[in-house]
Amino acid sequence: MIKKILIANRGEIALRVIRACREMGIRSVAVYSQADADSMHVRLADEAYCVGKPRSADSYLKIDQIIAAAEVAGVDAIHPGYGFLAENAHFNEVCRSSGFEFIGPSPQAMEKLGDKNTARKMAIENEVPVVPGSDGLIENDADAIATAAKIGYPVLIKATAGGGGKGMRVAEDEASLATAFSQARKEAEAAFGNGGCYLEKYIGSPRHIEVQVIADNYGNVCHLFERDCSVQRRHQKLIEEAPSPSLPADRREAICAAAVRMIKGAEYSNAATVEFIVDADNNFYFIEVNARIQVEHPVSEMVTGVDLIREQIRVAGGEKLSFTQDQIECRGVAMECRINAENPDKNFQPNPGKILKIFIPGGLGVRFDSHVYAGYTVPAYYDSMIGKLIVYRSTREEAIATMRRALMELQVEGIATTASFHDQVLQHAEFVEGRHDTKFVEREFLS
Amino acid sequence: MIKKILIANRGEIALRVIRACREMGIRSVAVYSQADADSMHVRLADEAYCVGKPRSADSYLKIDQIIAAAEVAGVDAIHPGYGFLAENAHFNEVCRSSGFEFIGPSPQAMEKLGDKNTARKMAIENEVPVVPGSDGLIENDADAIATAAKIGYPVLIKATAGGGGKGMRVAEDEASLATAFSQARKEAEAAFGNGGCYLEKYIGSPRHIEVQVIADNYGNVCHLFERDCSVQRRHQKLIEEAPSPSLPADRREAICAAAVRMIKGAEYSNAATVEFIVDADNNFYFIEVNARIQVEHPVSEMVTGVDLIREQIRVAGGEKLSFTQDQIECRGVAMECRINAENPDKNFQPNPGKILKIFIPGGLGVRFDSHVYAGYTVPAYYDSMIGKLIVYRSTREEAIATMRRALMELQVEGIATTASFHDQVLQHAEFVEGRHDTKFVEREFLS
Repeated sequence: MIKKILIANRGEIALRVIRACREMGIRSVAVYSQADADSMHVRLADEAYCVGKPRSADSYLKIDQIIAAAEVAGVDAIHPGYGFLAENAHFNEVCRSSGFEFIGPSPQAMEKLGDKNTARKMAIENEVPVVPGSDGLIENDADAIATAAKIGYPVLIKATAGGGGKGMRVAEDEASLATAFSQARKEAEAAFGNGGCYLEKYIGSPRHIEVQVIADNYGNVCHLFERDCSVQRRHQKLIEEAPSPSLPADRREAICAAAVRMIKGAEYSNAATVEFIVDADNNFYFIEVNARIQVEHPVSEMVTGVDLIREQIRVAGGEKLSFTQDQIECRGVAMECRINAENPDKNFQPNPGKILKIFIPGGLGVRFDSHVYAGYTVPAYYDSMIGKLIVYRSTREEAIATMRRALMELQVEGIATTASFHDQVLQHAEFVEGRHDTKFVEREFLS
Repeated sequence: MIKKILIANRGEIALRVIRACREMGIRSVAVYSQADADSMHVRLADEAYCVGKPRSADSYLKIDQIIAAAEVAGVDAIHPGYGFLAENAHFNEVCRSSGFEFIGPSPQAMEKLGDKNTARKMAIENEVPVVPGSDGLIENDADAIATAAKIGYPVLIKATAGGGGKGMRVAEDEASLATAFSQARKEAEAAFGNGGCYLEKYIGSPRHIEVQVIADNYGNVCHLFERDCSVQRRHQKLIEEAPSPSLPADRREAICAAAVRMIKGAEYSNAATVEFIVDADNNFYFIEVNARIQVEHPVSEMVTGVDLIREQIRVAGGEKLSFTQDQIECRGVAMECRINAENPDKNFQPNPGKILKIFIPGGLGVRFDSHVYAGYTVPAYYDSMIGKLIVYRSTREEAIATMRRALMELQVEGIATTASFHDQVLQHAEFVEGRHDTKFVEREFLS
């Protein structure tokens, strides 16, 4: 039984874990940087330890400091949240070897799934469709040309260690392939210290659909249906929803089954998200597994009624999943807007600073997960997300109407936020009709 | 079609109606007293009109001022909220004769149900059980003695125009009856200008269970199941929940059917609550009909998914109910704590004043309906409720855990609130086990 948990994170996700702990009667321990001393996660946890200076590298990424705090506090387990050390297999390993349960998969599963090329091979082994592409890493220009000819143009060059769009290039034809390949390689080398790249068929008009999965240590794996996260800006998700507005029922069943096969095949335990790209004909292709809780997990909680963080903690404590697949229904429509301290009128420039006034939206169907309050200063050191505005209603039309009025209510003075930009997206016919793809925002709003 | 609504109210319920209007594409018009110029209902409405001085009698109860605002704004309808003029049949009549739809029942239905004695007769006619009692008003002491002997002691003396416990007395035996009767009469005369009293059998260990009903203009009447509001202090509800933790399934079906019979029999349209007292053997007895939306309506919204304010507006606009009875399911457990600006350590003395800091609870299953924010001054002129903390979870145990952690999160600086008192109630074994009655709070906490 887990009785005390350290949360190796900050902001809203730290608060989310503290909330689950409190409801379960588990003591919570916060860690914080010097820049976060006034943060709500510090005030609401049962104990809190400063782990270093403001920069992430000097605090939230300091494994030794975090482990030291866990030892002093005498916790049983560590929840990594998302970002920071959440998918760091080394940290996972150090937690376990120091005697703390890591609330997530094993380091082995994390490591295998963290490498995109290995993950792709595992997908193929488990009959999960992947984008047609190179059989492993591309060695040189000749290899790239031969492979591209085989899978057909346009092709996408991707870094095996990549993420966030770095080390990614499209080549429309053979003429542009060599340049694109060498650019991707250099960028990947610089960003990740690993220049390894592979080739994939480039999917036009792609949607991003992912499946929430949770597994226990006894081989039970359940999905909590899909999330559609096609509203993105520069590969960063802005709006997520469940269920997908565009996926036919039979494809939905198939994509969820594929996600479960993937996680079963990886001998994975705890929460995972299996991400897919879906083309205009509703063919889906595996992209990657996120071996952690995700920012957008609340939309799945709303439509299924499952408390994902509690389930993560239960599973890590050695309990079986508290439900079986046939007990999970998807009811209603949930939507989440990530509210960032950014100025949408100035190219989404981060806008940290002091919140002078804030009105938090409420009413039927509204959930706001946030660590901010009037008087709080958003530090410049971290991610610009200041909260997640989540709505849950019976229909998508109602969910959009509720989100729009909640965005209008979210009045913040002192810093700029992306609330008004979300409102524009929510009014756009492509979004309203559920016809949008991952290029929608750039095509319609930013060009 | 209703396109513009004036809300003849303030605080959270004004905000609640504004929210529904915005989601429906209806323009909203706020009215406010001079004390409420900074209130969120003024800021969030599309238009706002000052209707007078701070005291309710000089603003929110000023029918002529409210009608004048409705005329200037050119609204189609008026929503009265709860309290103030919500159950004033004269106001209802004036709205209609001035050409505004009144969002509520007809003045006739309101008037009949507003008189407790008439309502009781209507209950009997519609085979809705009533507490054994006098056949109409009690004329004199001799009448009281004869009637009490017939129904058996202890008996309850109630004012026909009463409410909030005024004009109410218990007589344990014949010796105390005459004094109690004359006290009740005097108190009722002073409070309501109507000294009429009747007698009822006094129910020991009573629970307060009420049924939410909504009806359209075409004879369709649906219930949205029951709410248990047995946690009361001096006849004021503190915590409400749905479903009732103590009502067996067959009694639940019976009480909901009785409520529907009552509303059908009254030829009633729009939202109503049929209130019952339930004894230790689960016999239920009609108390009264509240011919308006109630403070605690959100718990019914959470368990049924029905937006009650939207439904009120639709019905008032001449539409049919958007659902049939068999489409309404009760799922999960919802609970509401009324958060008052009162000091529980000083006998719940009202504690208006400026809110210096506030952290609004969020996370899974939490809804906070409130008009307050950091920097807002709670005026001394009105009801002390500053918000309704509502939770919705799969089970009652989870709902209690979520409510307790949300109460802990609701940190307010500048004024005292009742949050900590709620937390004590939620921990008490009688409440946890659902064994509490309407005397629970006074017995366990205030004596």
